[in-house]
Amino acid sequence: MARQTTRWFRAQAIGFVERPVPDDEDSGAFFDPSVEVALEILPRWEGALAGIEEYSHLVVIVWLDRARRSRVARPIHPERRPDLPEVGLFATRSPNRPNPLGISTPRLLRRERTTLWVHGIDAWPGTPILDIKGYSPRDELHPDATVPAWLEALWAIHDAERGKTT
Amino acid sequence: MARQTTRWFRAQAIGFVERPVPDDEDSGAFFDPSVEVALEILPRWEGALAGIEEYSHLVVIVWLDRARRSRVARPIHPERRPDLPEVGLFATRSPNRPNPLGISTPRLLRRERTTLWVHGIDAWPGTPILDIKGYSPRDELHPDATVPAWLEALWAIHDAERGKTT
Repeated sequence: MARQTTRWFRAQAIGFVERPVPDDEDSGAFFDPSVEVALEILPRWEGALAGIEEYSHLVVIVWLDRARRSRVARPIHPERRPDLPEVGLFATRSPNRPNPLGISTPRLLRRERTTLWVHGIDAWPGTPILDIKGYSPRDELHPDATVPAWLEALWAIHDAERGKTT
Repeated sequence: MARQTTRWFRAQAIGFVERPVPDDEDSGAFFDPSVEVALEILPRWEGALAGIEEYSHLVVIVWLDRARRSRVARPIHPERRPDLPEVGLFATRSPNRPNPLGISTPRLLRRERTTLWVHGIDAWPGTPILDIKGYSPRDELHPDATVPAWLEALWAIHDAERGKTT
């Protein structure tokens, strides 16, 4: 049952991530989850957004178009931190993946026609959006989910660097 | 800040959804979440899977290659049920979307080299996989998420049709 060949598919932008304030695109800057971000959907898809505002959260799939596409499967240090163990890129959220797809599940604040205002999406302005779904607890909520020890260590590092007390 | 043009991107299959038992591809059959499904990743990406087995759950993005791609934004009845209100396709999980992308967050049972055995992925055999990530509660867990009333009604219908007592 092996299918060994790579197959290719054409994905289209249905909209773009925008921010009301120009961003300096400093990829080293901390992501601020309290910033309101606009998902600007193309006008032709306005009818496809009807009722999306009845969800509290969205699932947003973006194409990380400024990522360097990975062509090799070499293990990496997450966030290039040598103190973290090397793991495969699928075990990380590195944007440099075979397909530079990003997932976010932001809170939806409000809809204004084809603009979805959300909290908590970590993507540069102009990032193409490929799909929007409503966040479904029956499908996406796993309270019992566990993660590798290195990821918990990374979260603690992030919290400390942000000055957050945990 | 409007970007009105559609842009296109090329996505590649990194593997395929497989099932140990041939499936009759009856799309009307109920999805059985207890069936073990194999995610067969292409051998070239084996190194990229290192450490993925330390996650209890995955985020899997698939290309629903047998879906009829939506070119119009007309509201639809979810699952073609006339008793449910018409909503935009982004408010539904219909596979007939501008980009036929599917998301699953299955439990990972075990890894055997490039085979990931999971529970709870509702996709036909041969469905191309575009990306795999570890499920991260910090990013994907929203216990306070709420959904439209029609979706709660649909869940109740599904439960009743499956003979599940709720």
